[in-house]
Amino acid sequence: MTIGIFDSGVGGLTVFKSIAENFPEMDLFYLGDTARVPYGNKSPSTVKRYSEECASFLIANFNVDALVIACNTASSYAIDFLREKFGIPVVGVVAPGSYQAVKTSINKKIGIIGTNGTVKSRSYYNAIKRINGDIDVYQKACPLFVPLVEEGRIHHEITDMVIKEYVGILHSKGIDTLILGCTHYPLLKKRIKSLFPSLNIVDSAEAILKDIENLNIPFKENGKREIFVTDDACSFEKFAQQILGETKISEVNIEK
Amino acid sequence: MTIGIFDSGVGGLTVFKSIAENFPEMDLFYLGDTARVPYGNKSPSTVKRYSEECASFLIANFNVDALVIACNTASSYAIDFLREKFGIPVVGVVAPGSYQAVKTSINKKIGIIGTNGTVKSRSYYNAIKRINGDIDVYQKACPLFVPLVEEGRIHHEITDMVIKEYVGILHSKGIDTLILGCTHYPLLKKRIKSLFPSLNIVDSAEAILKDIENLNIPFKENGKREIFVTDDACSFEKFAQQILGETKISEVNIEK
Repeated sequence: MTIGIFDSGVGGLTVFKSIAENFPEMDLFYLGDTARVPYGNKSPSTVKRYSEECASFLIANFNVDALVIACNTASSYAIDFLREKFGIPVVGVVAPGSYQAVKTSINKKIGIIGTNGTVKSRSYYNAIKRINGDIDVYQKACPLFVPLVEEGRIHHEITDMVIKEYVGILHSKGIDTLILGCTHYPLLKKRIKSLFPSLNIVDSAEAILKDIENLNIPFKENGKREIFVTDDACSFEKFAQQILGETKISEVNIEK
Repeated sequence: MTIGIFDSGVGGLTVFKSIAENFPEMDLFYLGDTARVPYGNKSPSTVKRYSEECASFLIANFNVDALVIACNTASSYAIDFLREKFGIPVVGVVAPGSYQAVKTSINKKIGIIGTNGTVKSRSYYNAIKRINGDIDVYQKACPLFVPLVEEGRIHHEITDMVIKEYVGILHSKGIDTLILGCTHYPLLKKRIKSLFPSLNIVDSAEAILKDIENLNIPFKENGKREIFVTDDACSFEKFAQQILGETKISEVNIEK
């Protein structure tokens, strides 16, 4: 089984890592569209176009059996479009994260943090409401989290203040479960948990594993792993190493 | 005289505004590459390619007499390349800002704040050293400023903390002059000035005016103004209005 994973950048390597660890025999090809990152503040039509180019690259070059959209914004805007366009299974992060959150929440109050795009798309909101219309769902866009993480400020006074502000708004609504709706946010999970210890935190990078198991495509042994980015690879190696340890990354051009 | 101005996004509207106010008879066409914003963390080759596509759009559609690169990162990486490629005058923000800073500084210690790209390129550093090799130049990349400004946090505790940290590092070197090396930063000028009142602040959006006057191309009356972006226009109107007041923006696709 060969899986193609794409993301707007290298944040999706948190998803790649989680899949790689849990399915060691799987061939995994990752593409980060770092030349056009971020997707979180781009329009639905632009995100669809970029997602199509990412998917095309992975399908044309590696003949992948299935696609994983590691990016929450692309999952929100482009998943149905890609399924229809390419006719192969496409797993996004929104549905697995939503199911996991519904299963986890006891008081039926769920909070979602994400980029402007993910929040505006209301994709998590709608997915949860479809599962159970009685659940109260609250969203908060957190545009400062990605730059804070990329600057390496995981343990930092400013990051704590921003977490307190963003997550505090949802916490005050009485939520017991929080979905990390952006691939960068798992890097802040420990800080969020320590500032809001009562919250159950749902990480889509973990929630997605069940959906991949369900694809039921036979595995090869000794899974290959290759990572590509659309911009100069060097500048992302440091960040990628934060997630994966020592990593080799290659550069490609995917624009049509 | 017809001038084409481009930027990675809508931050360059601070430059557009400054030119529009000072040259009311000039025809001005602005392009913000909002589908691929930001340039500040992209590689030199990617920034060159994007800049070429921006310039081509303005030249092909409006037959502009000269180009203004409002983006500091693009000015840093692409100005010589565009001059050679298109054979028309190209004004960037780096040279005018550098000259202004050298003229302003009394103690010959100048600080520069900018994106990762602008700082890595050392474009301001080299430009100032070429003017006067005896000047001490200090740089600081400030990746949190753009998201803070775009979130509208101009007067905000967190923004003040970030300003104190970033600018404080340069201030402790004894600089008397600070270059705002990114088009978003003029929106923070008042806060920076109030936190560091002794600093002379150089805003490239103002410094560029002399260079435009020097182009000496005859003006028409009743200058036309048109603004284009490469992503959905709606999402940028709010931010553009912060800078320009009521503004009409159109969407175009410039990718080749």
